[in-house]
Amino acid sequence: MASINIHHHRPLLSLLPILLVLSAFTPTTTDALKLGEFKREIYSGAQSLASTDIANNDYDKYAIYYYTQTLDHFDYQPESYATFPQRYAVSNVSWGGARNDSPILVYLGGESPVDYLLKEPLFLSEIAAHCNALLVYIEHRYYGESNPFGSREEAYANSSTLGYLSSSQALADYAELIIDLKKNLSADNSPLIVAGGSYAGMLASWFRLKYPHIAIGAFASSAPILYFDDIISPQHGYLDVVTKDFRDTSESCYKTIRESWSEIDRVGSQSGGLNLLSNIFHTCSPLNNTGLLKDYLYGTYCGSAQYNVPPVTDICSQIDQAQAQGADVLHRVFSAVNSSVAHGECLDVTSGEDPSVADGWNWQKCTEMVMPIGVSSNESMFEVDPFNITEFTKGCQKDYGITPRPHWITTEFGGHNIDSVLRKFGSNILFSNGLRDPYSSGGVLRNISDSIVATYTTQGTHCSDLEHSKENDPEWLVAQRTTEITTISGWIEEYKSRAAKTS
Amino acid sequence: MASINIHHHRPLLSLLPILLVLSAFTPTTTDALKLGEFKREIYSGAQSLASTDIANNDYDKYAIYYYTQTLDHFDYQPESYATFPQRYAVSNVSWGGARNDSPILVYLGGESPVDYLLKEPLFLSEIAAHCNALLVYIEHRYYGESNPFGSREEAYANSSTLGYLSSSQALADYAELIIDLKKNLSADNSPLIVAGGSYAGMLASWFRLKYPHIAIGAFASSAPILYFDDIISPQHGYLDVVTKDFRDTSESCYKTIRESWSEIDRVGSQSGGLNLLSNIFHTCSPLNNTGLLKDYLYGTYCGSAQYNVPPVTDICSQIDQAQAQGADVLHRVFSAVNSSVAHGECLDVTSGEDPSVADGWNWQKCTEMVMPIGVSSNESMFEVDPFNITEFTKGCQKDYGITPRPHWITTEFGGHNIDSVLRKFGSNILFSNGLRDPYSSGGVLRNISDSIVATYTTQGTHCSDLEHSKENDPEWLVAQRTTEITTISGWIEEYKSRAAKTS
Repeated sequence: MASINIHHHRPLLSLLPILLVLSAFTPTTTDALKLGEFKREIYSGAQSLASTDIANNDYDKYAIYYYTQTLDHFDYQPESYATFPQRYAVSNVSWGGARNDSPILVYLGGESPVDYLLKEPLFLSEIAAHCNALLVYIEHRYYGESNPFGSREEAYANSSTLGYLSSSQALADYAELIIDLKKNLSADNSPLIVAGGSYAGMLASWFRLKYPHIAIGAFASSAPILYFDDIISPQHGYLDVVTKDFRDTSESCYKTIRESWSEIDRVGSQSGGLNLLSNIFHTCSPLNNTGLLKDYLYGTYCGSAQYNVPPVTDICSQIDQAQAQGADVLHRVFSAVNSSVAHGECLDVTSGEDPSVADGWNWQKCTEMVMPIGVSSNESMFEVDPFNITEFTKGCQKDYGITPRPHWITTEFGGHNIDSVLRKFGSNILFSNGLRDPYSSGGVLRNISDSIVATYTTQGTHCSDLEHSKENDPEWLVAQRTTEITTISGWIEEYKSRAAKTS
Repeated sequence: MASINIHHHRPLLSLLPILLVLSAFTPTTTDALKLGEFKREIYSGAQSLASTDIANNDYDKYAIYYYTQTLDHFDYQPESYATFPQRYAVSNVSWGGARNDSPILVYLGGESPVDYLLKEPLFLSEIAAHCNALLVYIEHRYYGESNPFGSREEAYANSSTLGYLSSSQALADYAELIIDLKKNLSADNSPLIVAGGSYAGMLASWFRLKYPHIAIGAFASSAPILYFDDIISPQHGYLDVVTKDFRDTSESCYKTIRESWSEIDRVGSQSGGLNLLSNIFHTCSPLNNTGLLKDYLYGTYCGSAQYNVPPVTDICSQIDQAQAQGADVLHRVFSAVNSSVAHGECLDVTSGEDPSVADGWNWQKCTEMVMPIGVSSNESMFEVDPFNITEFTKGCQKDYGITPRPHWITTEFGGHNIDSVLRKFGSNILFSNGLRDPYSSGGVLRNISDSIVATYTTQGTHCSDLEHSKENDPEWLVAQRTTEITTISGWIEEYKSRAAKTS
């Protein structure tokens, strides 16, 4: 732990002017929402991650490996046997070694290159240090360098090549790779814990359910495993939490944002209105329509609620200050984004997501990961826009020639009546959430059994517990992380005590 | 129960002159071994099963349905979206109905057409009657009418079309179909139990592990889920149990069989020896080599041990009687097959398996279902012939252009250290075995936890508990079936009691 560099008084996670969709996917407001552990800077996609790059940082050292992975685990066509190099990173700085049956902690990568996870230290390093665990980060197929078809262009060319990008294939990748890794390490008896945040957290919890012979437990941070099919009511979903986050902060701020959408439309539809909007918002280039601006603002509010970057309090205090100074609705909103996001520079409403994340995730949303996110309440700070599976399907058919399977995730992984199903079945899953995270609306917030447990904080945001500890962390976050370390250590202790009894 | 026709004094399961491989697959002795719930007569493959056919029997009435099944559940190529009609049969004669949350008992079909299962009543009908359960039999993809590619010829044409025949795809089929069925029946709250024997029993136990949100329990009869990879020692496998069955019955019988192989080779290699062998064994057509005869005898002994058809005691008493009358080794063996198998007719050593079973199962063996069956001990009544994965692989590459994945089943479904892995994880699986069944060597014979339990009998054979009760059943078999009904009823009672508490 001594070598870990703790950064004071600056946000650990840099700003990513995120969430806008510039992909080929037909844009609607709800497309702008994404998962993702953290708000990271766009990482240079072309940059390869070599051990030496990482070694330049003065925290955990990682060695990078590539596993020869099977393309298709579930079918036996000749092409199923194709292989690709799957990248993973291993740090043994905390490991007690195979001889001592010391544990292995594996982060099951989600929808981003593994570089994102290694860029700055995470809480996983602290868990590893506490448990003397080997720390492994595995890259998800189709993201980063773990490309099944040689070039990114070929892999993402069409649905025939993209077709192997699925959660089940990813879980099977992890199973194969982990078995091979443990064998190579002669670490058969080392208890292994999987972890992940956001989509990766869903994968971790599903992995524990599907592969209990490989992982003795799973730590799933901000994993909205219930955000599928009809499990949760859309009225209590993502955008309602965003609204609540803002409204709890300031009723007037909430009202300003709520009024701004129609005001943008009203002004934009007037003669010269788009120029006026461009001037008001100090956009880097003139607006051609109001859509990009609205999407930009929409994404900013959602990002603020999800990641606390920029904090909702910052946005609202700017809005409310401007209101106190007599600004109209549009200037209030401009004041907030100018101060909190653009920092006085021109507003680049065309800045989008990192395509190395967005392209893959848009595909996954159009196949399995159909989360019915929408607005059906007039109380929302967003415009009413109910999730419409028919429209959603049309968009996917247009963009990929493919039809979503919105019931597949619940068929494969369950979720309906999760309490009664899992009360007797399964064990050792820890779900953590922060209630300010809009995705917590699809999270597991209650203990299901003695060993399938939940921890949440009212103030936490998306995967906030996965960030590395900082000196000024609030008590509730310190407490949540302590619970997490205690729970995971408990699984390991129990495993070792049972192993001792039977040996 | 009153309507069930109990047959006296005749074998419930008719003779299938089984186990020889006449398929394109390179024959070796161990290829002759197969799974399969029962020894059934070859069922006319062309004959379609209609409700009226079944109604002609005076037991449970079945209605036949077809579910529009997804070809590939795990990938999203355009071709993954193809569908096929999956056949299933439903009997509601015992069902208490959805309103009463009465249970549903689903037999997850294995490597045979569903007709095989409906032809004569099974013990499942009795469980259904006891529990007021709906009884459902689902046909496995690629077997019977549940053909993904229109015609059988096309489906079995090559590895590109056969490629979708896998256990994971089959389990996902069952998940989809069952969810749809429960929805159509408005039976959301009906507890559902899956069952199966042999390969189907493996599927049932795996289904409970992978889809606990769909089935509250699994009854797996004679399911050799540990017969993969290196879990059990080959020295304690299938052919050693066959040997034990014969040796326990008669040491001299065992010795005769053990000596017969080299004697057949010795005689067959002499000038005119094949004619002599043809005469001795009264073969329907002259032998061209000794291989077919040896395979036929090999298959007869294995079938006798596995299914008790013909009983090992019958074979051995014939052999020993002939020996007492001074017959030489070959005439002793002939005497046994003539009396117990050929029944005085000529011996058709070319009679093989039902291709509707063999073709699919040979494919499955060459992909996932690699069971390392061989003989490495001189004590065996069979010739030494260790399982050789290299040779096995070559045969599969030659026949299908495909390489087996012998580690896949343990990667996907576990099995190593099954006791310690499942002691805390999972619940409600009942494994039943009979120790005279050679496949019991890969079965679960010990209780793993309070609710993952095993029942075995020393005298039972392959899936003998799945046959319908008969008046003259031995006590041990009656007792085993009572345990099974009690266990399954217990799961249902517990489910209902928990449901009552939470509602």
